[in-house]
Amino acid sequence: MTKMILTVVAASLCCAAGASAQPPSDCTPSALNIPGAPYPCIYPDNRVMFRIAAPDAQKVRVRIGSGFDMAKGPDGLWYATTTPQVIGFHCYTLSIDGAVVADPSTRTFFGSGYYNSAIEVPDPEGDYYAMKDVPRGQVRQRWYHSKVTGTWRRAYIYTPPDYDTNTKTKYPVFYLLHGWGENEQGWHVQGHVDVIMDNLIAEKKAKPMIIVMDNLNAVKPGESAALYFARGSLTQAVPEPPPTPGAAPAGRAAGPGRGGRGSLASSVFTEMLIADLIPMVEQTFRVAAGRENRAMAGLSMGGAQTFGTALANLDKFAYVGGFSGSSGGRGGFDPKTSNGGVFADAAAFNKKVKVLFLGIGSAEGPGTKAFSEQLTQAGITNIYYESPGTAHEWLTWRRCFKEFAPRLFR
Amino acid sequence: MTKMILTVVAASLCCAAGASAQPPSDCTPSALNIPGAPYPCIYPDNRVMFRIAAPDAQKVRVRIGSGFDMAKGPDGLWYATTTPQVIGFHCYTLSIDGAVVADPSTRTFFGSGYYNSAIEVPDPEGDYYAMKDVPRGQVRQRWYHSKVTGTWRRAYIYTPPDYDTNTKTKYPVFYLLHGWGENEQGWHVQGHVDVIMDNLIAEKKAKPMIIVMDNLNAVKPGESAALYFARGSLTQAVPEPPPTPGAAPAGRAAGPGRGGRGSLASSVFTEMLIADLIPMVEQTFRVAAGRENRAMAGLSMGGAQTFGTALANLDKFAYVGGFSGSSGGRGGFDPKTSNGGVFADAAAFNKKVKVLFLGIGSAEGPGTKAFSEQLTQAGITNIYYESPGTAHEWLTWRRCFKEFAPRLFR
Repeated sequence: MTKMILTVVAASLCCAAGASAQPPSDCTPSALNIPGAPYPCIYPDNRVMFRIAAPDAQKVRVRIGSGFDMAKGPDGLWYATTTPQVIGFHCYTLSIDGAVVADPSTRTFFGSGYYNSAIEVPDPEGDYYAMKDVPRGQVRQRWYHSKVTGTWRRAYIYTPPDYDTNTKTKYPVFYLLHGWGENEQGWHVQGHVDVIMDNLIAEKKAKPMIIVMDNLNAVKPGESAALYFARGSLTQAVPEPPPTPGAAPAGRAAGPGRGGRGSLASSVFTEMLIADLIPMVEQTFRVAAGRENRAMAGLSMGGAQTFGTALANLDKFAYVGGFSGSSGGRGGFDPKTSNGGVFADAAAFNKKVKVLFLGIGSAEGPGTKAFSEQLTQAGITNIYYESPGTAHEWLTWRRCFKEFAPRLFR
Repeated sequence: MTKMILTVVAASLCCAAGASAQPPSDCTPSALNIPGAPYPCIYPDNRVMFRIAAPDAQKVRVRIGSGFDMAKGPDGLWYATTTPQVIGFHCYTLSIDGAVVADPSTRTFFGSGYYNSAIEVPDPEGDYYAMKDVPRGQVRQRWYHSKVTGTWRRAYIYTPPDYDTNTKTKYPVFYLLHGWGENEQGWHVQGHVDVIMDNLIAEKKAKPMIIVMDNLNAVKPGESAALYFARGSLTQAVPEPPPTPGAAPAGRAAGPGRGGRGSLASSVFTEMLIADLIPMVEQTFRVAAGRENRAMAGLSMGGAQTFGTALANLDKFAYVGGFSGSSGGRGGFDPKTSNGGVFADAAAFNKKVKVLFLGIGSAEGPGTKAFSEQLTQAGITNIYYESPGTAHEWLTWRRCFKEFAPRLFR
């Protein structure tokens, strides 16, 4: 979530908007609005203007960053304009007399365990996730039954543009995980992973590959999944603020990437991945065999999960990435013992792991960079990527993906 | 929307729930809730209990059917319990001091031009849309550029379970349209069309086919799409009630199925379908050629659109269906002139159109049945299907689909 401090400029905004149904001419509706909704809109300097009809409410706030009080305009609608926002995708909610709800003006996005509103502040360098006239792949919804969890599960699978025409070709597979409070839709809905891949492939910057996006919130029959959605139900109480960047979710043990031992849930996902998901993918799609054709990465909790799963199963994975989720080193990184001692023999590790990638937003703190340096000092070859000016948000992860995918399966 | 009259039983419901975080033991959380959310829950007699945290609100209502006031319980949360609801999928919103918003306890669904909450009241005969251990197809997201609209558009395409293994087989194609205020996601998200097809194919009740679900809200560059979403932005004013069953959306001319001439938008969709969508589908998928391998149907506005598009292009379609959207006959059905005179030569029509299907919920009124009888009287072979006890809602349309799909491509 952005760390920008928002200030109240309500006095001017209602006059700027007047009683018109349309926003000021230099305020462009966000790309994430529902069809025809003029608000929220974004000014050229990235201030964002919100509006909501709440005729009988006493207090209305926009919950973005540190939050922002709205004011009733002469037209009886509530308005707020923020200070300039960081570029990228930002979830938000409204508080209406204390009820925390999505803004009905925008599409909704699953994050923190519920459906949020969101704005997209355009990135001037966001050409890599823009729709272009290039051959298009597909994102395929595929249901499958898991013996480990005893449930039907949904995976989304990206297939590259040539998948249905090069019918003799077998493709490498990249398992790509979402973060805490999210689900299997995050990477293609918020992340635009299909658009980024189509563009990378068209420019011959990445090899055509299959990308599997599953739900890492896996529990065994009878176990509670509440730890993944501890703040999920806004009906139960006034919710806590959004998760602190880099913090582990409530009730979940520190992930393996942080030097911990992983949690029950993380071991269930690993077991499910190996017993159910990989076999389904390899029976359903034309998949190239073997560890050198298999990559894994994830964002935030999904990065920690990746370190836990892939580093413990290097017979199955040769490419490993953590995006804002592999800072490691806290509680004392020791190359001889951390992550089950996988880093102890650096030469052997470097031979096995073709790419070890650590990505982070520059606003997220120094932990990941320190971890990268510790690894380097221990002789472990790794790539450190820092996204300039971004925080624990989707723009960081789109950029991490764009940096990581071209290095795969070379 | 259900026509059930809801009555206030707030006095008893807050005591029933007490201050516990969990609902009464015989009240089962709706299948559409976000993970871990105990409310809304459904009693065995199909009463539905709602809950929301709105600590400082003065008035909270559940907007389902004719609406229902919530009452604050001893735990400070707001509760309401409805009278028994009709089985099936029902959208709803909350009014919190006059702000109309989605309930944060449920997933959200695009309808009436914005994202609604919803409950699913189980249908005891809903086995046909239940997940079973059968071979599974896929629903594929495919972006394509339309020359007619000048925009990137998204289609979802269902491919049957054997599509990727029977690589020599070419498949017939069924173009399936959503209703007013909905989009290309409706049929697989609310309609479970992929699950229904997988089940029908496994039971050998329907032939394997490709199903294309696109967005019928098509306008030319520079034209406004507002007529499709006239009530879409809840931020602009207190919204009107949900659309009356069978009524045309505001600003849209009566559809061709109602004896009108269609609207600009409907002709743009037809032009886009023929110029852009069908060619994309036939270049991307293994499609059997010709009109006898092409079907079209839609719900509500999509039914009227189907009658407008398919009956005017019988060189391209041999199977035609309207689900709650083809009542026709109003303003005077005349077999010699209605729908451009396509019914004038009954023998020729019956030879060309392999199936003409008219479906409706029994609670929607007699218009579609009357139209079917008029057609029969004019010598036009048609199938009339009435879904028992259901209204202008998704359960009607799931059932219509289940009745229509087995008759295709025989």
